[in-house]
Amino acid sequence: MQLTGQQLIGQSCYSASGTPIWAINPATGKQLQPGYLSGGKEEVDHACELANSAKIDFRNTSTEERAVFLETIAEEIMNLGETLVTRCMQETGLPQGRIEGERGRTCGQLKLFAQLLRSGEWFDARIDPSLPERQPLPRADLRYHKIALGPVAVFGASNFPLAFSVAGGDTAAAFAAGCPVIVKAHSAHPGTAELVGKAIQNAVSSCQLPEGVFSLLYGSGNNLGQALVTDPRIKAVGFTGSRSGGTALMRLAQARPEPIPVYAEMSSINPVVLLPQALKNQAIKLGEEFIGSLTMGAGQFCTNPGLILAIKSKALDNFIAAAHQAIEQVPAQTMLTPGIYQAYTNGLTSLNNNGSISSSSKGLSSDQPNTCQAAFFVTQASNFLNDERLANEVFGASSVLVECDDFEQLKNLTQQLEGQLTACLHMEKADLTMAQSLLPTLEEKAGRVMVNSWPTGVEVCHAMVHGGPYPATSDARSTSVGSAAIDRFLRPVCYQNLPQELLPTDLRDGNPLGISILVDGKRSL
Amino acid sequence: MQLTGQQLIGQSCYSASGTPIWAINPATGKQLQPGYLSGGKEEVDHACELANSAKIDFRNTSTEERAVFLETIAEEIMNLGETLVTRCMQETGLPQGRIEGERGRTCGQLKLFAQLLRSGEWFDARIDPSLPERQPLPRADLRYHKIALGPVAVFGASNFPLAFSVAGGDTAAAFAAGCPVIVKAHSAHPGTAELVGKAIQNAVSSCQLPEGVFSLLYGSGNNLGQALVTDPRIKAVGFTGSRSGGTALMRLAQARPEPIPVYAEMSSINPVVLLPQALKNQAIKLGEEFIGSLTMGAGQFCTNPGLILAIKSKALDNFIAAAHQAIEQVPAQTMLTPGIYQAYTNGLTSLNNNGSISSSSKGLSSDQPNTCQAAFFVTQASNFLNDERLANEVFGASSVLVECDDFEQLKNLTQQLEGQLTACLHMEKADLTMAQSLLPTLEEKAGRVMVNSWPTGVEVCHAMVHGGPYPATSDARSTSVGSAAIDRFLRPVCYQNLPQELLPTDLRDGNPLGISILVDGKRSL
Repeated sequence: MQLTGQQLIGQSCYSASGTPIWAINPATGKQLQPGYLSGGKEEVDHACELANSAKIDFRNTSTEERAVFLETIAEEIMNLGETLVTRCMQETGLPQGRIEGERGRTCGQLKLFAQLLRSGEWFDARIDPSLPERQPLPRADLRYHKIALGPVAVFGASNFPLAFSVAGGDTAAAFAAGCPVIVKAHSAHPGTAELVGKAIQNAVSSCQLPEGVFSLLYGSGNNLGQALVTDPRIKAVGFTGSRSGGTALMRLAQARPEPIPVYAEMSSINPVVLLPQALKNQAIKLGEEFIGSLTMGAGQFCTNPGLILAIKSKALDNFIAAAHQAIEQVPAQTMLTPGIYQAYTNGLTSLNNNGSISSSSKGLSSDQPNTCQAAFFVTQASNFLNDERLANEVFGASSVLVECDDFEQLKNLTQQLEGQLTACLHMEKADLTMAQSLLPTLEEKAGRVMVNSWPTGVEVCHAMVHGGPYPATSDARSTSVGSAAIDRFLRPVCYQNLPQELLPTDLRDGNPLGISILVDGKRSL
Repeated sequence: MQLTGQQLIGQSCYSASGTPIWAINPATGKQLQPGYLSGGKEEVDHACELANSAKIDFRNTSTEERAVFLETIAEEIMNLGETLVTRCMQETGLPQGRIEGERGRTCGQLKLFAQLLRSGEWFDARIDPSLPERQPLPRADLRYHKIALGPVAVFGASNFPLAFSVAGGDTAAAFAAGCPVIVKAHSAHPGTAELVGKAIQNAVSSCQLPEGVFSLLYGSGNNLGQALVTDPRIKAVGFTGSRSGGTALMRLAQARPEPIPVYAEMSSINPVVLLPQALKNQAIKLGEEFIGSLTMGAGQFCTNPGLILAIKSKALDNFIAAAHQAIEQVPAQTMLTPGIYQAYTNGLTSLNNNGSISSSSKGLSSDQPNTCQAAFFVTQASNFLNDERLANEVFGASSVLVECDDFEQLKNLTQQLEGQLTACLHMEKADLTMAQSLLPTLEEKAGRVMVNSWPTGVEVCHAMVHGGPYPATSDARSTSVGSAAIDRFLRPVCYQNLPQELLPTDLRDGNPLGISILVDGKRSL
């Protein structure tokens, strides 16, 4: 399949006329063809108009129709075969196995939402039947379910060119909810975006959905994104990226005449607490596992373990030594973009120049372009508490271990942390009292609390929360991974006294879809 | 019980030192004793500190403990007996039957949340069991439920001195979620607020909860409210009132270093569409019912029918004539406050001076202070579409009927409406096609869609949505009435690989609370 460098608006392709965007192969530093001419207000207007005219028909498709649509997208992505894998490798510097794994995850994610749609759980259906004889006043017939918010703007992430991008979690959740989607392609992987965009275009067509259900726009700088978020026809925004990018979108969305929700997944340093007994018995193993988690994929994960907390001890010294030793053997890895590489290098320089680092080590270097040399720093709790730069996210394989004098200080430190995506505890039975004492703070600070696990690796399932208090995300009430992500694009509507012919199918008498309904507050299957 | 005029902070009462607030009896225009000296930053700080230290213990109370707490508040409110009813009547000008009814509703609301807590549905519990043999990677044990957001600031409404005030829907929902609550008393009914606040203080004490679970603050002007919303320990805001008040709180909350959700229920004109066949057969009856709904409680309801839409016809002329005739017999009623009365009078003057009114009528006048003379205006669709002042909410018993040339124009007009709390259709079988054509727009514009009902009267139940797109509320994804209101004060947390001893009770093996759980995406009871 030939890449065209065009904007995909509904079922058509258009050449825009703005500044061109070229992908850079980070492994070589060379431009990849074609250039993608930036769109602007005109393209946004066209895509929004189509999305707006499609919204009612799409919202009113049956759950089965939307489930088939999601499955068809997955098929179309697989049909792209090697073309997709090759282009994605060129644009990201990620190895083949990783890209193939991520493709599997992306398709699995689409299928999970298809399963959710068929289960009917997402409706959150409720019926409070009428009580005509009730005194002093009768009760009307009241039925409740959730419906789509309307057209959604999605900003993909650089670090998951498939699973958090054009057909990634935000798009899958919005489609499942019945919302048309307009994606702004990430400028780091425009060719991957076009290939996946074409796959979705094909699925829209073969499922005979209105063309406005999907558009894919390209734009350098902030103009196109701003136009998209401020268009009155857009009703929600999904974003994965930096804190500055996410908070800029939040401000734009709040300043609209009609403010809209922004779901921004931003930054997290994912604290890992090593409790004494676990350290005592497993220091070396934990040190090695830690470096494995830290350096996986050049550390370019939202859930990378950027902060380790532990109480000073001989065992902790062993952990630190094992980690120093392990990291020194980790080969340098190509980072996603020259910009990410530069930011990583700046982050390391800042930590290296910070006077409060007691020891540090780094991975192997390389003379290849844009390669991440892993880094591990050790500091003291008093320094960490007094210098917020030590808690800044350095996106990539860099982590800071904070040595605490005692449990009190460690607990106090966890209470000072910002919101996080994850928090991990390494513990054994003898650590239970400390774990119980820390748990209320950890669950308050993070969307996911783990025991004897490392934070990298996010399961796509029903019980996942990939979210957390600000600034980990813009909205702690939501998740961007897992089937609960659909809730971000839904709102409840109550129907009072509607005749059967007007009621949505799922709420009609006799439960025609066979779903689980809350009747008078009681769960009925 | 003697009113003290003091701030209730935790279990203590304090005299503040700011500008005093006196309630005014709107029926007489006279001040009521005592004066409530305004608090400020100091009182906010104290209340927030207590709330913050109570938050973990309160969040970790069992559902049964919180259910009993809510029921105890209801009992304590009933124990206030005539004292509460009398003071509330004096402060609001509302008749005894209405106050007693609202007291019943308030207690019923507390009990509904107790029922919800015991059902366990609010946890939204999910378990995806571990799959240790899965290839290529095993799945960890993942469990999910919702937990309290943290301390909540509540701003009560003037028009429901009990049901949307100190122990109203926001407070009940936040307590049920496990969030400490700090209420800013509405300055129109400070004595009612103190009585109910004391009832909650008693319940906190007799249930042996930490005192920081509840505080009640008084403040004139905006200072105290601003200090409350910007305090970093506050994690969410509930508000019922004007659009300007609600949007000011939204801006404050968004400008915080850590933005927080604001649930503001603001303004709505609650469109009612009269379809041709219903009009043809029931014009007179509908006209009379309309005036009944419009003038109930001096029209001081968020769901007051402020806009009627219909296609020109002889039957519509009959409806209009019946409404004009009915309203002319409606006695004037005392409004809640001199300020509301003044705003209502200004709204009527503006409509009376609007050149595009084709006919109007009004209710009986009165020489008593602050009395609402009901008003009904008729205009043409072309005027309404060109003059947004005709769509402004006039809080009180005022409504505008818009005559449309045909169904096309009526449908177009519904598409231009702002977000609403409710939308009503009056129809008969022959109107079904029109109703089906309008429904997608009505459900997009409103939180509750009704057929052959009038919008006033909001059932407190599980299937209710008292919410809707902006500017009806700040957040269309929520409701402020009914058990689903608890969701506003919760966020999901995922627990990965936790030992049984660390897991919250509801998520432990064997379902010890006997609640409904989503296991691997399938509902299990």
